[in-house]
Amino acid sequence: SVNDERLLGRLQRLGEIGRGADGRLVRLAASDAEKLGRDQFVAWLKETGIEVAVDRIGNIFGIWRPEGVADNAPLMLGSHIDTVIDAGIYDGCYGVLAGLEIIATLKESGLRPDCPIAVAAFTNEEGVRFAPDMMGSLVYAGGLDVDVALATTGIDGAILGNELRRIGYDGDMEPGFIQPHAYIELHIEQGPVLEREGIQIGAVENLQGISWQRVTVNGDANHAGTTPISMRRDAGHAAARVITFLRDRALSSNTPTVATVGCMTFEPNAINVIPSRAVFTVDLRDPDEDRLREEEAALEAFLAKVARDEDVLIEVERLARFEPVKFDRQIVELVEAAASRRGHTCRRMTSGAGHDAQMIARMAPSAMIFVPSIGGVSHNPKEKTHDTDLVAGANMLLDVVASLAKA
Amino acid sequence: SVNDERLLGRLQRLGEIGRGADGRLVRLAASDAEKLGRDQFVAWLKETGIEVAVDRIGNIFGIWRPEGVADNAPLMLGSHIDTVIDAGIYDGCYGVLAGLEIIATLKESGLRPDCPIAVAAFTNEEGVRFAPDMMGSLVYAGGLDVDVALATTGIDGAILGNELRRIGYDGDMEPGFIQPHAYIELHIEQGPVLEREGIQIGAVENLQGISWQRVTVNGDANHAGTTPISMRRDAGHAAARVITFLRDRALSSNTPTVATVGCMTFEPNAINVIPSRAVFTVDLRDPDEDRLREEEAALEAFLAKVARDEDVLIEVERLARFEPVKFDRQIVELVEAAASRRGHTCRRMTSGAGHDAQMIARMAPSAMIFVPSIGGVSHNPKEKTHDTDLVAGANMLLDVVASLAKA
Ligand SMILES: NC(=O)NCCC(=O)O
Ligand SMILES: NC(=O)NCCC(=O)O
Repeated sequence: SVNDERLLGRLQRLGEIGRGADGRLVRLAASDAEKLGRDQFVAWLKETGIEVAVDRIGNIFGIWRPEGVADNAPLMLGSHIDTVIDAGIYDGCYGVLAGLEIIATLKESGLRPDCPIAVAAFTNEEGVRFAPDMMGSLVYAGGLDVDVALATTGIDGAILGNELRRIGYDGDMEPGFIQPHAYIELHIEQGPVLEREGIQIGAVENLQGISWQRVTVNGDANHAGTTPISMRRDAGHAAARVITFLRDRALSSNTPTVATVGCMTFEPNAINVIPSRAVFTVDLRDPDEDRLREEEAALEAFLAKVARDEDVLIEVERLARFEPVKFDRQIVELVEAAASRRGHTCRRMTSGAGHDAQMIARMAPSAMIFVPSIGGVSHNPKEKTHDTDLVAGANMLLDVVASLAKA
Repeated sequence: SVNDERLLGRLQRLGEIGRGADGRLVRLAASDAEKLGRDQFVAWLKETGIEVAVDRIGNIFGIWRPEGVADNAPLMLGSHIDTVIDAGIYDGCYGVLAGLEIIATLKESGLRPDCPIAVAAFTNEEGVRFAPDMMGSLVYAGGLDVDVALATTGIDGAILGNELRRIGYDGDMEPGFIQPHAYIELHIEQGPVLEREGIQIGAVENLQGISWQRVTVNGDANHAGTTPISMRRDAGHAAARVITFLRDRALSSNTPTVATVGCMTFEPNAINVIPSRAVFTVDLRDPDEDRLREEEAALEAFLAKVARDEDVLIEVERLARFEPVKFDRQIVELVEAAASRRGHTCRRMTSGAGHDAQMIARMAPSAMIFVPSIGGVSHNPKEKTHDTDLVAGANMLLDVVASLAKA
């Protein structure tokens, strides 16, 4: 079994890094706050006595090559340590620290796997500062050119490559330099399913498709008091119609499609000026690729209608697009078997969130283990998982690693 | 007649003060940019050889006390030189500079009015940085305590009193120190009526009521990918419903009510996070007080419904509330008579925008003169009035001043 005190203690400590004077945890990718989190993770890797490597997109790897074990394809564990704005402490960090904990536990126990084990902290999984999300693992798996990724401009105008250089995490290794023979990621569910059903472990067998777009509506500023409603080209009203359209559509269908408008900005953003511009994001997801395409097409058609109705100009920029992913059946079965041996209730499930596992699945058999999220809350400071569930998940990971760490 | 070159030249010069590197004119009340505009106005007042006074709320007065004229109640002219964000150059400045031009013209001509004439540049008419709008004239007319006004917090967190001190316009005079016997304000229409009807001069007989509110919707942040639609407490969606409600209501009624949501902010404003908070402004206007109350009540009822439907908490803060104002009938008739003498087409009309005249009307008979706005555009860099109309308006003002500048 893992050292639960060490794991839970580190989770709490990492959760304090990047917490502002206002109490909010904000550790956006490649920011000063995230540098401190990275430094702490690297310090723990070194304390554990394993090799540290950083690749060109800033992914950090702790690599344990047990003495006497052949240098064959490693087993990879991992997740991310960047966060959203006003985040909880579990999302991503749990998987990274549990991966480290597995290596430390195995090392201390004297047990020797048949292959090296690597634990990764992938760059910019959240996608909040730089799009797309899961960027570090996507680049690592060859899905996005590293130089293109490094040139990405963030919501604050910063360039990712410059930021990685600034914080000292512009590594030398070429992404993909370790080719794992399997990848397994432990994560909090971030949704309500396990808790609602009273189940302890999720064996994640697939992950829904993700479509991110940024929509810019260009209307015309005019005086709020003098401009008749019929003469307005109100970018804010056009944006509001899109939000209610997406909600009404999601509610009136019988599908699991979710649609979210998370970002919104008005210009000039003045009380007595009709908005000349509204910029907002649309996050569309569905486990079924055909349905996701239908939703995208419906949005596109509605945007065209709104542009006509409101006499505004609408531009759309794609920020991320990932098809649904199926995880490796054998690893999913290993998870189920481990849960059964440990006496945990377990169900197969779909991940609603995006994860690095979905990218690494392009290069190696991959799967995920979920533990329950209290109230289904995530991307929120109230995000929480019971300590017993966190420890149970880590021990599940230990068991699965024991099964997977074969030559 | 006025010196049209001087008037138009000054209007252009003032219009360059506060223009940023991005080409946008932003001269928000009591900002560094507005200080430069104030300094320019004061320099022109001194050049004209008239007394300058600043009161505690930062209103600037140029006071001409012609030699030999008894110190009886002055005639007051004026408007404002603060602007919205990304403004045109005419709104407010035209009235202030035309007032100055009238005094300069009369002085130069050797004509002697029967009373002093004052020209005012009132503080924070736009209300964009500090609410309410028309703050300087409201305080001047005794409608708002000066110390309460000075304590107002702006959209940038600044305190008005500190800002006025910082820019050196925290004057000594007590607001109301000049009690005018009449007030007349020349302004661009900012709306489409005069142009559409091909009329040169508006004799403004009333001004619609203004209701400004700031609405804060508190929902709950959660993960965009994992949170079923039915479990969301989406502050952004609640805000969007309010925008479409206001528009649908305005469109389906047969009244001149206008409703505008000019400001909108989402928190945490991240692409994959359901908004936990949305803060927006509502600007409601109607020439009829009873109808304005009905609109406010309808909004209040709808906010309560949205709060229930969306399981969000909604707080409302009043930022400004002014009843419709009727201007002085005799001055309106003087405007009509002057237009007729000059051979201008003229119509009585309602002002859609708020103006300092509406506040000064509390302390003295007041009215306004409008000139056409091309395309009805204002609060927009494309705001424009033909030079011939600007000059015609200034000469109209000269004539009305000649009629009003009596002991
Ligand atoms: N796990 C997680 O929250 N990932 C962020 C990317 C996304 O799903 O929006
Ligand atoms: N004239 C003018 O634009 N005033 C600003 C106050 C308002 O009407 O919103």
